[in-house]
Amino acid sequence: MRLDVVTIFPEYLDPLNVSLVGKARARGQLDVRVHDLRRWAYDRHSTVDDTPYGGGPGMVMKTGPWGDALDTVLAEGYEEGARTPALVVPTPSGRPFTQKLAVELAQRPWLLFTPARYEGIDRRVVEEYATRMPVYEVSIGDYVLAGGEAAVLVVTEAVARLLPGVLGNAESHRDDSFAPGAMADLLEGPVYTKPPVWRGRGIPEVLVSGHHGRIARWRRDEALRRTAANRPDLIERCDAAAFDRKDREVLSILGWAPAPGGRFWRRPEAVEE
Amino acid sequence: MRLDVVTIFPEYLDPLNVSLVGKARARGQLDVRVHDLRRWAYDRHSTVDDTPYGGGPGMVMKTGPWGDALDTVLAEGYEEGARTPALVVPTPSGRPFTQKLAVELAQRPWLLFTPARYEGIDRRVVEEYATRMPVYEVSIGDYVLAGGEAAVLVVTEAVARLLPGVLGNAESHRDDSFAPGAMADLLEGPVYTKPPVWRGRGIPEVLVSGHHGRIARWRRDEALRRTAANRPDLIERCDAAAFDRKDREVLSILGWAPAPGGRFWRRPEAVEE
Repeated sequence: MRLDVVTIFPEYLDPLNVSLVGKARARGQLDVRVHDLRRWAYDRHSTVDDTPYGGGPGMVMKTGPWGDALDTVLAEGYEEGARTPALVVPTPSGRPFTQKLAVELAQRPWLLFTPARYEGIDRRVVEEYATRMPVYEVSIGDYVLAGGEAAVLVVTEAVARLLPGVLGNAESHRDDSFAPGAMADLLEGPVYTKPPVWRGRGIPEVLVSGHHGRIARWRRDEALRRTAANRPDLIERCDAAAFDRKDREVLSILGWAPAPGGRFWRRPEAVEE
Repeated sequence: MRLDVVTIFPEYLDPLNVSLVGKARARGQLDVRVHDLRRWAYDRHSTVDDTPYGGGPGMVMKTGPWGDALDTVLAEGYEEGARTPALVVPTPSGRPFTQKLAVELAQRPWLLFTPARYEGIDRRVVEEYATRMPVYEVSIGDYVLAGGEAAVLVVTEAVARLLPGVLGNAESHRDDSFAPGAMADLLEGPVYTKPPVWRGRGIPEVLVSGHHGRIARWRRDEALRRTAANRPDLIERCDAAAFDRKDREVLSILGWAPAPGGRFWRRPEAVEE
C-alpha cells in the first residue's frame, strides 16, 4: 500500500517510522511519503492560509497550495504506476472513522491524506478532487484537535495493522474489541499474566482451572459487564439474537431487558444517572 | 499542567515537541516528561510482557515494570510539589473520550498516561492505582490501534488547546464543532477564502453580501445539513428546543420530524439505507 501525506508539520508524522508502521515500511509492505505543503506556497512568507469569506475568527487554508501539492503528488504516483488513490480528509465534520471503515480503507492501493490546520481547507479543494477519486472525510472522535496530523497517525495505524503480514504473532487481532466474530460489538474484559500474586492482589481462579469452556464463559461475562458499564450504546445496538441464554442472564442481572424489535434496553429502574 | 507518559516507544511521542503542544512546552505552560518503561524491566531481555493466564493469543504487559515505573514517576512528581495526578489509560475497552472529557481533564494539574501494547496491561495495575487517584480508562474511537501512544497524542492535543493562553488568535475555538454554545452538537459547515474563483469554482454569494444575519443563517443551515448527512446520531440526541423555526424548516426538508420526548427523528420514508 502506498501512503502520501501533505501537511505543514511533516515532523508530526515521524511516528510513522516507529513500531508497527515503521517495520511495515522497512519490510516494503508500506510505501509512505510525507510532503511539506509549504513547498507549494509561492510568496516570501510561504503563506498557506487567509481570512474566511463571510468573516469570523480563524484562518482558512487556501486552494492554490493544496491544488498544486495534490496535482504534483498525484502525477508522481501515477508515473510510478499507482492506481487511483482515495483522498482521506481528517475533519471533525466528517463521518466517524470506525473499524469497518479501517477494513474498507485497507483494501485500497493508495491513500492520500490531507491533514488541515486552522478552520480547515477551502471547500473547493475537496469538491475538485471528488470528481476524480473517492473522498473520505473522516472524524476520529467527538473532540477537537489542533490539526489533522494526529488523526493521520490514528487512521494509518488502524489500517496498517490490517494489511496482510503486518501484524506479528504477539499482536493477534482475533479477540480484539470490535473484531468481527463472537466478540463483535463487545469490549474486551480484563487480562492477567504472571505472577499469580502482586502486591497482595491475586487473579480470578477460573483462569488457572484449565477448563477452557469455563474460561471462555468467564471472558464473555466480563466482556458483557465492561461493555454494559462503558458502552451501553453498543449493547443497545446489538441484535438480541447475538446473545445466548447465559448472556441474557448476565445482561438481566446488569439491568437490561429484551425490547421490541429484537434488541436489549436498560430497564428504567436500573438507570442511575 | 504536568504530563508524564510511560511507554515502550518513547520516540512515538516526539510530536509533543511540535506545533501547539511544542510551543506550550517552550512557553512553560506544559511540563511534559516521557519515560521508557524498559528502564523498569530487570532481566537481560528487558521483558515487559508475558503470556495471558487462561491462555489465548497475544501477550499481556506485566505488573512489575508498570508498578515500579509508576511508583518512581509519582515519587518524583510529589517531591517536586505536584498535586494528585489523574491516571489516563488509553484502551479500546474504555469509555469514549469526548470534548466534555477533554474539558474535565484540562482542569487537572497533572496527567499520567499509560499507553499499552499487545493485549493490554495486567488488570491489577489499574486496580492498585485506582485506590490512590482518579483513573480514566478512555477510548478515542471505535477502531483498534497497535498501541496507546497515538491515543496519548490525541488526548494531549485536545486537552492542551483548552489550557489558558495556549491557543493563538489564528486558532479560535468559538465556532468549533462540539464547542459549547449555539453550535453545540452541530458540525461546522464549509469554509472559503480568496480567490473568489478557483479552477472555475466560485463561492456562495451570501458570503460576500456583507449581511451578517444572512451569513450566520447560511452557516447554520450548512451546519445542520452536514450534521444530518454525516452524524444523524447528533441530531437525534439534540433537545428539539435548541432548534429555532428556521432550523426546523431545514430539518424538515432534510427528512426530519419532531418526535415525542422533545427530540427529532428521521421520518421513515426519508431514510435511504
